[in-house]
Amino acid sequence: MQMTKPVQSSTPLLDQVDDPKQLRRMSDAQLCQLSKELRADTISSVSRTGGHLGSTLGVIELTVAIHAVFDTPRDKLIWDVGHQAYAHKILTGRRARMATLRKEDGLSGFTKRSESEYDPFGAAHSSTSISAGLGFAVARDMGADIGDVVCVIGDGAMSAGMAYEAINNAGALGKRLFVVLNDNEMSISPSVGAASSHFANLCRTLPVVEIDRFLKRGAKLLPDPLRIGMERTQRAMKELAGSGNIFDHLGFQYYGPVDGHDVPDLVALLRALKTHGEGPILIHAVTRKGAGYDPAEQSNDKFHGVGTFNLVTGAPDKPSAKASPPSYTKVFGDSLIKEAAQDPSVVGITAAMASGTGIAAFAKAFPDRAYDVGIAEQHAVTFAAGLAAGGMRPFCAIYSTFLQRAYDQIVHDVALQDLPVRFAIDRAGLVGADGPTHAGAYDLAYLSNLPRFTVMAPADEAELVHMVATARAYDHGPIAFRYPRGAGTGVELPEKTVELDIGKGRIVRDGRTVALLTLGPRLSEALAAADMLNARGIFPTIADARFAKPLDTELVERLARSHDLLICVEEGAVGGFGSHVLHHLADADLINSGLQIRSLTLPDENIAQASPEAMYAKARLDANSIAKVVLRCLSIDQGEGVEKSLKVTF
Amino acid sequence: MQMTKPVQSSTPLLDQVDDPKQLRRMSDAQLCQLSKELRADTISSVSRTGGHLGSTLGVIELTVAIHAVFDTPRDKLIWDVGHQAYAHKILTGRRARMATLRKEDGLSGFTKRSESEYDPFGAAHSSTSISAGLGFAVARDMGADIGDVVCVIGDGAMSAGMAYEAINNAGALGKRLFVVLNDNEMSISPSVGAASSHFANLCRTLPVVEIDRFLKRGAKLLPDPLRIGMERTQRAMKELAGSGNIFDHLGFQYYGPVDGHDVPDLVALLRALKTHGEGPILIHAVTRKGAGYDPAEQSNDKFHGVGTFNLVTGAPDKPSAKASPPSYTKVFGDSLIKEAAQDPSVVGITAAMASGTGIAAFAKAFPDRAYDVGIAEQHAVTFAAGLAAGGMRPFCAIYSTFLQRAYDQIVHDVALQDLPVRFAIDRAGLVGADGPTHAGAYDLAYLSNLPRFTVMAPADEAELVHMVATARAYDHGPIAFRYPRGAGTGVELPEKTVELDIGKGRIVRDGRTVALLTLGPRLSEALAAADMLNARGIFPTIADARFAKPLDTELVERLARSHDLLICVEEGAVGGFGSHVLHHLADADLINSGLQIRSLTLPDENIAQASPEAMYAKARLDANSIAKVVLRCLSIDQGEGVEKSLKVTF
Repeated sequence: MQMTKPVQSSTPLLDQVDDPKQLRRMSDAQLCQLSKELRADTISSVSRTGGHLGSTLGVIELTVAIHAVFDTPRDKLIWDVGHQAYAHKILTGRRARMATLRKEDGLSGFTKRSESEYDPFGAAHSSTSISAGLGFAVARDMGADIGDVVCVIGDGAMSAGMAYEAINNAGALGKRLFVVLNDNEMSISPSVGAASSHFANLCRTLPVVEIDRFLKRGAKLLPDPLRIGMERTQRAMKELAGSGNIFDHLGFQYYGPVDGHDVPDLVALLRALKTHGEGPILIHAVTRKGAGYDPAEQSNDKFHGVGTFNLVTGAPDKPSAKASPPSYTKVFGDSLIKEAAQDPSVVGITAAMASGTGIAAFAKAFPDRAYDVGIAEQHAVTFAAGLAAGGMRPFCAIYSTFLQRAYDQIVHDVALQDLPVRFAIDRAGLVGADGPTHAGAYDLAYLSNLPRFTVMAPADEAELVHMVATARAYDHGPIAFRYPRGAGTGVELPEKTVELDIGKGRIVRDGRTVALLTLGPRLSEALAAADMLNARGIFPTIADARFAKPLDTELVERLARSHDLLICVEEGAVGGFGSHVLHHLADADLINSGLQIRSLTLPDENIAQASPEAMYAKARLDANSIAKVVLRCLSIDQGEGVEKSLKVTF
Repeated sequence: MQMTKPVQSSTPLLDQVDDPKQLRRMSDAQLCQLSKELRADTISSVSRTGGHLGSTLGVIELTVAIHAVFDTPRDKLIWDVGHQAYAHKILTGRRARMATLRKEDGLSGFTKRSESEYDPFGAAHSSTSISAGLGFAVARDMGADIGDVVCVIGDGAMSAGMAYEAINNAGALGKRLFVVLNDNEMSISPSVGAASSHFANLCRTLPVVEIDRFLKRGAKLLPDPLRIGMERTQRAMKELAGSGNIFDHLGFQYYGPVDGHDVPDLVALLRALKTHGEGPILIHAVTRKGAGYDPAEQSNDKFHGVGTFNLVTGAPDKPSAKASPPSYTKVFGDSLIKEAAQDPSVVGITAAMASGTGIAAFAKAFPDRAYDVGIAEQHAVTFAAGLAAGGMRPFCAIYSTFLQRAYDQIVHDVALQDLPVRFAIDRAGLVGADGPTHAGAYDLAYLSNLPRFTVMAPADEAELVHMVATARAYDHGPIAFRYPRGAGTGVELPEKTVELDIGKGRIVRDGRTVALLTLGPRLSEALAAADMLNARGIFPTIADARFAKPLDTELVERLARSHDLLICVEEGAVGGFGSHVLHHLADADLINSGLQIRSLTLPDENIAQASPEAMYAKARLDANSIAKVVLRCLSIDQGEGVEKSLKVTF
């Protein structure tokens, strides 16, 4: 294949495309040229915004070929995960807005139904595309005005059980459905799992060249112009695998492997299949993540997710001038390594989030005790449960939003059996540029009502260190700690860890009249709010609950009895910490004798992408909002002047 | 194979077994005899208790063979789902307690860690065994005192993505692990999905007879006595499939198919594999659900779950004397059929719960609009989301406890995209004999905090009819209704359905001082409690919230303002309806001026199996408990005399 140079200032063909329909009238040569321009434009655009570059670069030619052959948006093109769809966005009317990618009020970093009719099914979590595509296919066969359905899914996403469930069902139903396996042997990090090796073997062994029966039948029926296309197709499918692979067994016709960067071959194959294909069809396209941009191809993660960078060198912009505090992720990873050094039963488990969770660092220190099971959260959790039942001390490190995939396993395999699995829940709360699909909004609610589950949230990274130690030592049942994405508060890290008293919070600052009871890192906002309020003569007590469960009922009751206003603050939806406080105080008859109470949670809406700070302000969980609630509850004037003064104080 | 007659009064060999270790000294002939006795004993026992008979009868010989070959409990035998483990329970010291099966304070109907050291990992939901088994295998290789690990999983359970995730990971890790595929082509109903056909093809096509390399190698090394065993093995494996199947591709060595009812063949194969097997091994055993008991073999569902029955005829005992009200399940199925008759966009979806959810009846009426996707809840939900995005009106009918498997799909694919998927959630609340693993305790909590989700719960089956109609008509976003297992209240069913006002409850009985605000079928208990209280001069207002979300804030505020005591009652854990009421009233400053409030939910403990009534009494959500809370809050003496009078009044 021929790749373009990354930097290309003029994009004459791309400039003319304002609708993907135009691609359907282009020659192969024009489509090749368009691909070059599209690659250059994507690189240039992402160099200014940051984003998921590598995966989009891997599917530039696929993007062009699919839009050239299929009748989008009537034909439904469903990108699995959706972070590889930047080129798709550029081609489908969003080129002018690419500068706003992943920014407040800007384009989403994923596909999104509300953004374009060319995004028929939004994504962000992996492995959903085939299920959704089958839904569209069935709707079409029931009479909906829908044409073909094309799902593009990476080999990494194929490790998730959900994809297997969908293939299994689609294979049995036999509806016409196209699935493109975008095989780059990478998910975020290199793919793991036996299926992945299987795909690799399909590529490495020279497959039986078997032109499928439809081609033989089809060739006879074709008029001359199409017969020429067919000959192309036959060349394109020179490496067509015959049978005997996993997709065959699951009822799909398998075509491939095909070079995912060869536009004419791709177009010919897709055209032939669009014309003659029947039932569920899998097209195995081999691509390279980061393809066509040297700095990406040469980097380990192929520029999976990048900040802004220098277009020519690929070097990241603005190397941070001052050292920022270590991230919670790093603090967790380091702490786990320390715990494991003194305890041979510690095991680290993650699900394709090794570097994102700090398990990569752990794996470097303890390669025999680290397990990255691939995109397979369900298995990860029950595997950890098995390890715990076998006497080990497993730490299961998964982002809050992805842990949702393993909810039943948490309930059924871990909680019901009281197995001491340790859950290290990263990316809890609002996460910034990745937006609402990645928000860790629900874990406090869905864990805290499980009998005998212990749920912690550190107020800062020093607390996190203690919680890792606490979790390691705690063998009486499941225990979780959840912490945010990004840098810690900069607090000094403890040299010596302490095991926390289970179910005990702490008073951080003594005060009167008003009590602010926080769970997790909102503590710093509560302290900032208190500083603002001090200037108004209000001196709140500040307490850090540390535990959502078991609830520190003694602390809660004490605060309730000795204050006029109690405000709980957490980085989660209704149903979590604050709900348990309310239930307890109601049962104890402590809120019906004058105590005012508020439980500040994430609001009943999805908070759109922005900086985490802006998102929390929108969620009214920032210092300013907390202070305003206090003033409102105390019926203290908080007109514009006051708000200004609050801000000044802050 | 030779099967025993079902009725056999004497079990001389079984009577001598009080430890499965004894099986390891038995001859093949004795093991065959023991299997016969075990089958007879199981049938006889279940005829008196009811339970999951068919699946246990399918694995009688497997149970005997595994315990005869493997060193349980040091070797870990993990039954997937666990409802096929009755014979295993009989062999492992629980024979005398079989009369208590699935009863209050009795043996669980599933495997359970707290019940026996021979149950290393409990189950009840499907497809968890391989993940757990891999955990034990890794723990062993880290030094735990664990021998071999044997997982027994049905072909139905293989349709769940979780099993695929585990096989994929186990295949890649290469740890020694035995997985027995118990292939009876049935889950609860016949298995669906392409994988299932694949397994069937493995059986039907005469596979390549290829004695695996270990056998060739092994035979050379064996001393004579073992060589004889090896010859047996070779006979046993005469239908051994060679390669090219899905398990091969995923890194497992595949052996089979083998007759799962031939004890000598099974023992020989397992012995050979235990001695010479390396890495992950899959043994494909073909069994017949209900095997060896004519009434079971001849019934459609192979006696999957039965009540007590006549041992000789298999006819159910005690045909119910009086007609009981129709079940919620039946009312839902009938209602869906009526809605579908007038609306061609209605689609019914379930995940291997067709008869349990009423989708079987719907499928009979509308075969082209019914989809049973197999044990694949994740796919079911996103498939429904795709249908909704394609303009259809999908009803996704899944038990509350199994819907937990699709939590992330509900959040990410349905709720975040505001897609109008209708969730018909059966088996909500406590479910009786199936116990805590099947409790539908959490759906109210995990659905009610999702932005723009509508969550309903009918107080009786007439309300359910209206809710089905309401859900069909509601196109603005996701909507769920959840209802209990079992018979309705017997209320008259409406001839004409009405679409309910979204987010509006209703006053059922006007009263004063005390307000009981219920969600779902606890309404009848609240009414009964009110009847008790009337006798004490207390006349509560009774209201039915109908909606957990959106909350009828106007009704909640009205009740709060006009009563001294407000009690919310729901059949769910903390975090659901009552939590939202508390949050709202706190925000509205309506609970700090004297109003007493209680939110009665399922307690913070797992309620063990019993009758649903007994379980709800234990959960303190029955009429008597509600009345007692009222008396306690009003500081009215409720000593023994009072309680008695309450009971008399009731």
